[in-house]
Amino acid sequence: MIHLESDYNNGAHEAVLRHLLETNDERSQSYGDDRFSQQARELIRAACQTPEAQIWFLAGGTQTNATIIDCVLQPFEGVLCADTAHINVHEAGAVEFTGHKVIALPSHEGKLDARDLRKWLDAYFADDTAEHMVRPGMVYITFPTELGTLYSAQELTALHDICQEYNLQLYIDGARLAYGLAASTDMTLPQLARLADVFYIGGTKCGALCGEAVVFPKGDAPSHMLSRIKRHGALLAKSRVVGVQFEAMFQRENNTLFYLNIGKHAVALAMRLRSLFVERLGYKPFIDSPTNQQFYVIPNKDLDALRQQIGFEVWCPVDESHTACRFVTSWATTEDEIAELERLTRKMITR
Amino acid sequence: MIHLESDYNNGAHEAVLRHLLETNDERSQSYGDDRFSQQARELIRAACQTPEAQIWFLAGGTQTNATIIDCVLQPFEGVLCADTAHINVHEAGAVEFTGHKVIALPSHEGKLDARDLRKWLDAYFADDTAEHMVRPGMVYITFPTELGTLYSAQELTALHDICQEYNLQLYIDGARLAYGLAASTDMTLPQLARLADVFYIGGTKCGALCGEAVVFPKGDAPSHMLSRIKRHGALLAKSRVVGVQFEAMFQRENNTLFYLNIGKHAVALAMRLRSLFVERLGYKPFIDSPTNQQFYVIPNKDLDALRQQIGFEVWCPVDESHTACRFVTSWATTEDEIAELERLTRKMITR
Amino acid sequence: MIHLESDYNNGAHEAVLRHLLETNDERSQSYGDDRFSQQARELIRAACQTPEAQIWFLAGGTQTNATIIDCVLQPFEGVLCADTAHINVHEAGAVEFTGHKVIALPSHEGKLDARDLRKWLDAYFADDTAEHMVRPGMVYITFPTELGTLYSAQELTALHDICQEYNLQLYIDGARLAYGLAASTDMTLPQLARLADVFYIGGTKCGALCGEAVVFPKGDAPSHMLSRIKRHGALLAKSRVVGVQFEAMFQRENNTLFYLNIGKHAVALAMRLRSLFVERLGYKPFIDSPTNQQFYVIPNKDLDALRQQIGFEVWCPVDESHTACRFVTSWATTEDEIAELERLTRKMITR
Amino acid sequence: MIHLESDYNNGAHEAVLRHLLETNDERSQSYGDDRFSQQARELIRAACQTPEAQIWFLAGGTQTNATIIDCVLQPFEGVLCADTAHINVHEAGAVEFTGHKVIALPSHEGKLDARDLRKWLDAYFADDTAEHMVRPGMVYITFPTELGTLYSAQELTALHDICQEYNLQLYIDGARLAYGLAASTDMTLPQLARLADVFYIGGTKCGALCGEAVVFPKGDAPSHMLSRIKRHGALLAKSRVVGVQFEAMFQRENNTLFYLNIGKHAVALAMRLRSLFVERLGYKPFIDSPTNQQFYVIPNKDLDALRQQIGFEVWCPVDESHTACRFVTSWATTEDEIAELERLTRKMITR
Repeated sequence: MIHLESDYNNGAHEAVLRHLLETNDERSQSYGDDRFSQQARELIRAACQTPEAQIWFLAGGTQTNATIIDCVLQPFEGVLCADTAHINVHEAGAVEFTGHKVIALPSHEGKLDARDLRKWLDAYFADDTAEHMVRPGMVYITFPTELGTLYSAQELTALHDICQEYNLQLYIDGARLAYGLAASTDMTLPQLARLADVFYIGGTKCGALCGEAVVFPKGDAPSHMLSRIKRHGALLAKSRVVGVQFEAMFQRENNTLFYLNIGKHAVALAMRLRSLFVERLGYKPFIDSPTNQQFYVIPNKDLDALRQQIGFEVWCPVDESHTACRFVTSWATTEDEIAELERLTRKMITR
Repeated sequence: MIHLESDYNNGAHEAVLRHLLETNDERSQSYGDDRFSQQARELIRAACQTPEAQIWFLAGGTQTNATIIDCVLQPFEGVLCADTAHINVHEAGAVEFTGHKVIALPSHEGKLDARDLRKWLDAYFADDTAEHMVRPGMVYITFPTELGTLYSAQELTALHDICQEYNLQLYIDGARLAYGLAASTDMTLPQLARLADVFYIGGTKCGALCGEAVVFPKGDAPSHMLSRIKRHGALLAKSRVVGVQFEAMFQRENNTLFYLNIGKHAVALAMRLRSLFVERLGYKPFIDSPTNQQFYVIPNKDLDALRQQIGFEVWCPVDESHTACRFVTSWATTEDEIAELERLTRKMITR
Repeated sequence: MIHLESDYNNGAHEAVLRHLLETNDERSQSYGDDRFSQQARELIRAACQTPEAQIWFLAGGTQTNATIIDCVLQPFEGVLCADTAHINVHEAGAVEFTGHKVIALPSHEGKLDARDLRKWLDAYFADDTAEHMVRPGMVYITFPTELGTLYSAQELTALHDICQEYNLQLYIDGARLAYGLAASTDMTLPQLARLADVFYIGGTKCGALCGEAVVFPKGDAPSHMLSRIKRHGALLAKSRVVGVQFEAMFQRENNTLFYLNIGKHAVALAMRLRSLFVERLGYKPFIDSPTNQQFYVIPNKDLDALRQQIGFEVWCPVDESHTACRFVTSWATTEDEIAELERLTRKMITR
Repeated sequence: MIHLESDYNNGAHEAVLRHLLETNDERSQSYGDDRFSQQARELIRAACQTPEAQIWFLAGGTQTNATIIDCVLQPFEGVLCADTAHINVHEAGAVEFTGHKVIALPSHEGKLDARDLRKWLDAYFADDTAEHMVRPGMVYITFPTELGTLYSAQELTALHDICQEYNLQLYIDGARLAYGLAASTDMTLPQLARLADVFYIGGTKCGALCGEAVVFPKGDAPSHMLSRIKRHGALLAKSRVVGVQFEAMFQRENNTLFYLNIGKHAVALAMRLRSLFVERLGYKPFIDSPTNQQFYVIPNKDLDALRQQIGFEVWCPVDESHTACRFVTSWATTEDEIAELERLTRKMITR
């Protein structure tokens, strides 16, 4: 059985766990003032080429989104996003719980289109009744998106430019950032850090036990962030636990960021999966995703056979005889598993 | 240098870390449905003698308090506590952030007195304008308290009885429960689970990297807890990380709960510290604490000498020449450290 | 100049003001316990044929929506509505401020379609990840809608039936209920009260200085409503001010509810306006509204001439040479004004 | 029967009602842009001698407190007040509903003492853990207090100076401001407007049907107040209703502000009541109040006789044979009523 249900079904990457082990007995400050977190911040600043960046370590993705969005927005402001955005669909209303409206625009394979955004903003600012409406204060995007797709440098720059023009914060949810950076042909971490006003580097889905790193690349975070984070219940007493893990993930390994290598491993295996599904089995991609989340249109007659070999997620029905399914590789997926899958599917074909 | 600043300055207890290691490569369900969390729940149910208990694993203490209090209270209800309570002082308003008033009553060495509670409740319910006031819905206590003290079985039963009488939920914050149970002469975990409507078993301060276990002993948690927890940003995707740790902490070791042994270790060292300070150095206890948090009235002239040997926290000034200080042992404090301290202070005396 | 900008630009209906005057010197209980509010409640119960109804008087529409939606929903629930709904567009995020998501479905001339609703609900309840999403708890509709349209008895019954089937509350915002009931060919107040779980009868836009009457027709309001309302800042000390006005509006006049007559007056004038615009001036309706809000496609070349005679609101551009505009009659619009308008437009035609 | 239960049991002052009547048929802008509100603002600015003041009209006191406190505070800040403060006791947690902690200090006959305030602030800012606590952002006082007492100019200046020193906003709740200004020997409206950062002028309890006027005397209100107020559900569509009433109350009458004269009338009658109770009946004041709220220690044996003649409120038991009771005069109390009371009590004495 090969598990491709999601990228958060294992513990931590071996290197991350090892660093937790080797630092375990060293006493340290709490609430983020420890040596490990300080060092992790330095490594992240260097990797982002943002020497002024302010960085906080939080426990999970929904927590990070709700906390950061609420901290950055004015009380009367809302956040714009694609209607497929995680904050709009799968966070149980955590952003609304903090009092802010999530304003959903049409998504295009998971992405927010700059033209849709501009059109909405122009309509808002032209509206005589705008003061009776929720004011836009932020644009939220995911990189990669919930559908595994990526913004090109040009697309992201277009969103960034509109945000500048309309005085909005651009926030990038990088829950799966390692996979996105590994797969992108034209986006790097420093470039992303230049375009975003605030973003987070995902740990939980990219090799850590838990934890996300929030980065204000320009060092212009709101005042009193510690109090704000604590008020959201998001301040870890032993914040070092996340710091240590990011210290491990932001080491350099063969001249590359280890975090990036984690992503590359999973993306390479995802591409082998794609070859297998598309070229060998003749499945059509449901979405053309270059990252570790792969979506295919599976003939219903094959579902049972696949289920015996692979753990995966049914996404949605496509037509009477086909179902879109999601297959996710991760840092924990092994070469052997994909090779085994290639072997197994050979049988499926000859069946 | 011996570090007695707090009980969350190390990583995790070696046995906890080992279990994280040995379970790391096993794939599992997410969001709390994993095998480890299920097993941890069974161990906790057994230890509490509450076969019907519902249990959730959250990341940290403030998060747990804010989430549980908000989930359990009706919107128009508030929570009663001692004025020294963590939720009233040191959670940056996290409970109020969820819309509930924290109603503080006088504390007696960190404890809420049943008579004060009854008096307040009687006044509330006799008040013609009660409907214009925040209705009491819950009593919050800490075991041990923020000052290291413990409720006796009788005291806790008195609070429990009042809660029953006035239809209030009794919620026990067990951030340092291991130390409290280890030190108590008449309270056991099953007894605490009988008296509380909901409580949490602290992991972060008692040997885990992070994590707390929320227990509804009677299995009467509000509906849709997963959605409620997620809405508070408190649902861990890789919830197993906490489950694994509690699985380790709730093993039996020499016929005793390992979690309890962790507490006993720290409390025993705290008692050696007390002998040292009181009998050898002649310091007066600031609070008579039987647990791992020790408070002494230190002559100001000794402060510098102590600071060279021990990391500790200044609590508050007592008079012109004395300062109350806090010294905290933990699972990570070693016999050697206390022995070293005994040796060092011998010099202080001969000075 | 004839003012058709909106239906809240005058004081109060003469009969309402008179009743405020004649009751002014009588002392009364506060916070809704006064004789006038009690009497108004009796009159409303009778008019709705709901002897068990619970009724509260609040000051304004947005306040009422946010308060009632928050009181009725469970914390983790959201409210479904048409995307044109007042709560989704023009309440500055007041519902989200109380922590609840507004889930917008496509609108059809301002109305929510039962098929869209069922489709959304079926998808939600079939979704494996539903517990990670905001749970639907209520359907919100406006009667009449923001575009002046009305649900037929059949349409409203269809929505009601789905709500029953899926265990949702049906909430009807009757900010302009007088006009809706006056215009409807098949909906009466008792029928609306049978179909809704909770609704409000609009005062502010229907002849009162201020105030709305919230009705729980089955008498099953959440407990402690006074505390809940006060917590939302929505409890009027001198609640009688609204009670007195509803007492006046719910008198019978010539065997008809006076509140209904207010609506009939405005709707009759709106129909004369329609004849004038459609038949005489040849304007096309932008929306086919049977109520006091009328929307027409005005040739841009006529806009200036109209503006000299009429106060109205530009709604949205239609094409390069046409603009949709809104013209609103009310209880305060006079026969003379419409006659004058008919006279004036005669000149426009001969121009 | 003479009604002295409270100052919100009648309709409106005759002059206020008359102005509602005479302006009723004039059409106006909505949401506060109307001619009457503009004129009322000018009158208030003149009376306060604050030409730059920004002014909003809201419906009621609790709504005003919750809205303004939430608008002015940073999210992580709380509001300091006396423990008897209306926001701490009788607003059903409306401030906490907006996410802010109410931090209660000891009250001295309803007043906050500058020394208590400074002591608390010094302790807060000296505390190493201050960032984990709710940060003080505002001081809330009532003028007059809930117990009818008044701050002297010196006391209020002392509070103001501390607020300046510690960078806190000073907010004055003037629900009964007319009575306070009428009774004060050394505070005027312009002086209060100089000392406060924001305050509200009470309408509901001082002669209006409803409505309070929020004043930012320096014109430094937060941006987007209309959106903020609407988000709190506190924006009246027909805001003119309050504007018209304040226009009436801020007229000059015999060279004095009519609003002040309303207060003087009630205070004069309260002083006659005091003579009656203290000198004639020998009752002791429970609180030494110079304003329209009077508190006396009534022998229990007199309670029934009093109750037959007067409506009043039992405040609290004093000892076994005495009860503190509250007697409130208002703009609606008449000379005749007090004269009648004097006559009636003559009988009580001779009884």
